[in-house]
Amino acid sequence: MTDNPPSLQVQDIGEQGLLKRLHKFCPPDMVGDDAAVMNLLPAQQLVITTDMLVDGVHFSEGTTSPEDAGWRAAAANLSDLAAMGAQPAGITVGLGITGTTPVSWVERLYHGMQSCLHQHNTPIVGGDIVRSPIITLSITAFGQAYPNRIIRRGAAQPGDAIIVTGCHGASRAGLELLLHPEFGQNLQSAERDSLTLAHQRPKPRLDVLPLLWEIFGQESPIPVAGMDSSDGLADAIVQLCQASAVGATIERNSIPIPPALNQLVPADRALEWALYGGEDFELVLCLPAAVAQKLLNQLGAGAAIVGTISSQAGVWLIDNAGIYPAQQLTLNQGFKHF
Amino acid sequence: MTDNPPSLQVQDIGEQGLLKRLHKFCPPDMVGDDAAVMNLLPAQQLVITTDMLVDGVHFSEGTTSPEDAGWRAAAANLSDLAAMGAQPAGITVGLGITGTTPVSWVERLYHGMQSCLHQHNTPIVGGDIVRSPIITLSITAFGQAYPNRIIRRGAAQPGDAIIVTGCHGASRAGLELLLHPEFGQNLQSAERDSLTLAHQRPKPRLDVLPLLWEIFGQESPIPVAGMDSSDGLADAIVQLCQASAVGATIERNSIPIPPALNQLVPADRALEWALYGGEDFELVLCLPAAVAQKLLNQLGAGAAIVGTISSQAGVWLIDNAGIYPAQQLTLNQGFKHF
Repeated sequence: MTDNPPSLQVQDIGEQGLLKRLHKFCPPDMVGDDAAVMNLLPAQQLVITTDMLVDGVHFSEGTTSPEDAGWRAAAANLSDLAAMGAQPAGITVGLGITGTTPVSWVERLYHGMQSCLHQHNTPIVGGDIVRSPIITLSITAFGQAYPNRIIRRGAAQPGDAIIVTGCHGASRAGLELLLHPEFGQNLQSAERDSLTLAHQRPKPRLDVLPLLWEIFGQESPIPVAGMDSSDGLADAIVQLCQASAVGATIERNSIPIPPALNQLVPADRALEWALYGGEDFELVLCLPAAVAQKLLNQLGAGAAIVGTISSQAGVWLIDNAGIYPAQQLTLNQGFKHF
Repeated sequence: MTDNPPSLQVQDIGEQGLLKRLHKFCPPDMVGDDAAVMNLLPAQQLVITTDMLVDGVHFSEGTTSPEDAGWRAAAANLSDLAAMGAQPAGITVGLGITGTTPVSWVERLYHGMQSCLHQHNTPIVGGDIVRSPIITLSITAFGQAYPNRIIRRGAAQPGDAIIVTGCHGASRAGLELLLHPEFGQNLQSAERDSLTLAHQRPKPRLDVLPLLWEIFGQESPIPVAGMDSSDGLADAIVQLCQASAVGATIERNSIPIPPALNQLVPADRALEWALYGGEDFELVLCLPAAVAQKLLNQLGAGAAIVGTISSQAGVWLIDNAGIYPAQQLTLNQGFKHF
């Protein structure tokens, strides 16, 4: 991908030299002005989201290649757009790097972002590169959606089914395997890879949107509340309930856990990672029970109806098998502290 | 503005506590979802720009209050939109802060951004707050413009007049006065304030756009090339010429220098700061000579026609008084190095 010596550092080629190398990751008509110019489709609303990632806080050299850091950053932003019901249109990239950051590291980061974005026809339209004592990546993604198709957190109704678009806990397990390679030696290599890839290359679930539009047709607005599970499945359900002023009952045996995870750790740990591990980037949607099954039939392996929205406050994890007592889920375990 | 004790730190209230305090800086319907949703005007293009600022690199506690850091960051982004001919629609804010950053510092930063944005009816529509070892601010501003009114760098034509919308060198002088308070004791306090304010509270020249539209009416596209002078006046002229594959002749006695700056330093230093100081955030526009005077009549004090676009490559600083030899302006002095 690069003909630079691995030792070439950003300070050797300066800002202009680096920008020249990075222009190949952008559409040629987008670069060279003070700002990027884009066409949006008529009658659509602009949907816009920002994520900032800091070396040592959100990723680290030890477990994250620059390609993976780039992929994950792009995927997290596209996932936020998917959670709003929006199709991506482009991203801008703010990047802080040290003078001694290898040029190849920066190019590999952009390559990782581009690999993820290409799958969704989304260009890098602009950005800013600055000197910083710590590598910092700030992505703003923007997309578009018809106003009647926007998905918000506050629209859940009592009686709605809660559907998740895929398995949970895999990303957390993958991180554990990357941090502790001696762990999980009982797994076959394909199972191992499925978990580490879930962590390194999460997929934003933009593919779910056309399925929803197909099911609801011209219904307006579409009766769906939702968000993504980037901060954990429990966090997503609690946030949805708080925003909608409702509660929920979640059936613990319905939570989809990848088979490899059940081989890796005991059931209670697997459940904990599924609920609180985070970064699975699936969608958590609340929609009328009558149509939830229709959507479920269209979704791939791992998707499941995990519970029901209720009018009483509180999110309860219950056990239909009668073994475990009901347990209240809260935001606290999922909090990111400063 | 705040009823917090000055000692209250971000780590005392956590991410959720901080977000709650910052929601007051955003329109109430914009917060609480995975992304912000905005309406754009029909038939307009989206214009989008990003700037990243790092403590110790782009601002510092010594010379920059949090209010000023916020104002300047917002102003720099709005200036990029003005340079594209676009009206601002909103910004997102990515903020990296340490656990020990005072809550009041963060609120004062947002207050500064908001003070600048309010003057242009521009909301903060979303963002991300993360932990970082170094305070980092990444703003993405987006605006809108009719396609035929977009201002690009590459549209300058031989014969065009080069017009600057205001004085240059004031921001650089203001920085010097802030760094060295013992300097410039010969200035009156109003003159001092005018220079320090130019540095602390630069004004994005969005007010110039309606003047252009008025002059050109339905002419389409409007025959203007332009950018802002945030990286210096010399840098802007050289960049415009390179993007347009033309050259320019600049008359050194036409470059508008604030009177206070001429009292502060010798003429050659004043000229150097005007050409290379940067951060004056004026617009540098190339447009047909016949209409340049019309625009000049509408612009305030400090605006000036400083030179002419030519078909030969190279940007030359000439002296019509015949005292100084012609001198070529290059990007090199304006380069930011890693």
